Amino acid sequence: MQYLNEAQTAKLITHQLAYTAVKDAFIAATTDEATLFPVVNASGPQTDSMFSLKSASTATLVGWKTGSYWPGNQAKNMPCHGTNVFLLSPETGELVAVVAATQVNAYRTAAADAVAVDYLARKDASVLTVFGTGHQAEYEVFAIAEVRSITKVMVVGREKHRCEQFIKRLIDKGLQAKCEVVSAQYGCENADIIVTATTATAPLFEASWVKAGTHISAMGADKVGKQELPAELYHGASLFCDYAAQAVVIGEFQHSENAQVIEIGKVITGASAGRDDNVAITIFDSSGIAIQDLFVAAKLLELSQR
Amino acid sequence: MQYLNEAQTAKLITHQLAYTAVKDAFIAATTDEATLFPVVNASGPQTDSMFSLKSASTATLVGWKTGSYWPGNQAKNMPCHGTNVFLLSPETGELVAVVAATQVNAYRTAAADAVAVDYLARKDASVLTVFGTGHQAEYEVFAIAEVRSITKVMVVGREKHRCEQFIKRLIDKGLQAKCEVVSAQYGCENADIIVTATTATAPLFEASWVKAGTHISAMGADKVGKQELPAELYHGASLFCDYAAQAVVIGEFQHSENAQVIEIGKVITGASAGRDDNVAITIFDSSGIAIQDLFVAAKLLELSQR
Repeated sequence: MQYLNEAQTAKLITHQLAYTAVKDAFIAATTDEATLFPVVNASGPQTDSMFSLKSASTATLVGWKTGSYWPGNQAKNMPCHGTNVFLLSPETGELVAVVAATQVNAYRTAAADAVAVDYLARKDASVLTVFGTGHQAEYEVFAIAEVRSITKVMVVGREKHRCEQFIKRLIDKGLQAKCEVVSAQYGCENADIIVTATTATAPLFEASWVKAGTHISAMGADKVGKQELPAELYHGASLFCDYAAQAVVIGEFQHSENAQVIEIGKVITGASAGRDDNVAITIFDSSGIAIQDLFVAAKLLELSQR
Repeated sequence: MQYLNEAQTAKLITHQLAYTAVKDAFIAATTDEATLFPVVNASGPQTDSMFSLKSASTATLVGWKTGSYWPGNQAKNMPCHGTNVFLLSPETGELVAVVAATQVNAYRTAAADAVAVDYLARKDASVLTVFGTGHQAEYEVFAIAEVRSITKVMVVGREKHRCEQFIKRLIDKGLQAKCEVVSAQYGCENADIIVTATTATAPLFEASWVKAGTHISAMGADKVGKQELPAELYHGASLFCDYAAQAVVIGEFQHSENAQVIEIGKVITGASAGRDDNVAITIFDSSGIAIQDLFVAAKLLELSQR
């Protein structure tokens, strides 16, 4: 059994590795050989502590991901979230690897949105608006900057000083783009790409603010009741997701009233069309699927063995 | 993260350790602080391959058990079944241990039946009848021989030569008891304790064959459709199980038509009565709960650190 600890995986992970792995996972998710099993949402003995088990199987990868959330860790100056990925041998069922993936998970999540940007946003898209100023939002900006020449990043948040701190972090980490704090309306009206990375349970902006040709990657919705986008936006837009059966239950498209939703894997393989033209509005919902984690873990293992 | 591999745990495990851990788990399972989460039954890419995720949480232990079954392993001269136990810190949610537990699982399963024998069989019970001649049946015999002075073991199986091979294995492994192959009827009519360790989907014997004062531990039923005992036996018998909510769905008592079933943990703590007298028939159904695995894994970790 091979174990990669958090320090090892944090050193190995890159946006490029996550991008390649997640793209492979999107393709696998659209084929018959991939199966996602019911998610377990469990709890621990500490107040509000919880962990989930998300398992999946493809022809080459079998395993599951565990996400933990222990909010009491904050008082201990420790991360509240934790992620580990477990791989069984597809040939024998043996446990072959445990991969600590807390930081990896941020890259993996951002990579999903970046792959969608790469396949769905206009080629000339250069202005990115990000809703949210948290840890994950940072990774989203850098992952998207890997797939498009982003010259300007506009930040929308509830508190101005948090937006400014967020921009400072982006610049400190080497982002080569002009950054500014904007209102939700201004951010929507002037963006080529919008990414939402919040825990919202109501729309973050109005549908009418979004201009023709915009691509939106929404990552916040992963539970019943969560919502970042206005449902009015879906009429006339092209809708895409990681895994349709999940997106319409716990993802953003739980609010889409049976609109047609295309899995991004089909766009990648060419089985479905992506963006039609430069005026279409494309929306990608990422609800997160275990296959992505398995593919990223497998790539990290491969890299660690070189 | 601590990892105990199969060689380490196979060396550390004993019937006594498993007994103590499973007894503690039975008590925990009856208290409010313990929670069992929905079981995931997943599959792998090989024909008929499958794995399960069974998670649980108590005040002191949080984690899950994975059982894998890859029948194609037989052709590779490898075990088809595999078990691993994973523990999270109840304080922080961090992954603290992975414990390989394939052989341990056989001890754990047998210990559940042995604890039931210890608390429910007559003190003077000395004649054991075992239905089944497989790997698990061996562990059942030895675990029960630890809690009662077994002087005679009667073996019931579909094929005589398998029964004889089974007896040879028991003797080779040091069992100090007279052993013989018997019919189901003879085995029932002359037993103080009956243990069933088969994959049956229909009763193994007739209710009328079971004499007054017998204790039965049934371990085979762990899925809808499985059955080892005749339902007629339940009228007038006292029924016990590891976890009532599960026993009546996937355990033997799925066939009990709402009979009253007492959790063995309550007998251990004295909250419920066990055997009333020397003529009662007591029946224990073991469907297997993840808490047992967590407790056994924790004890192995403790022992390994000494």
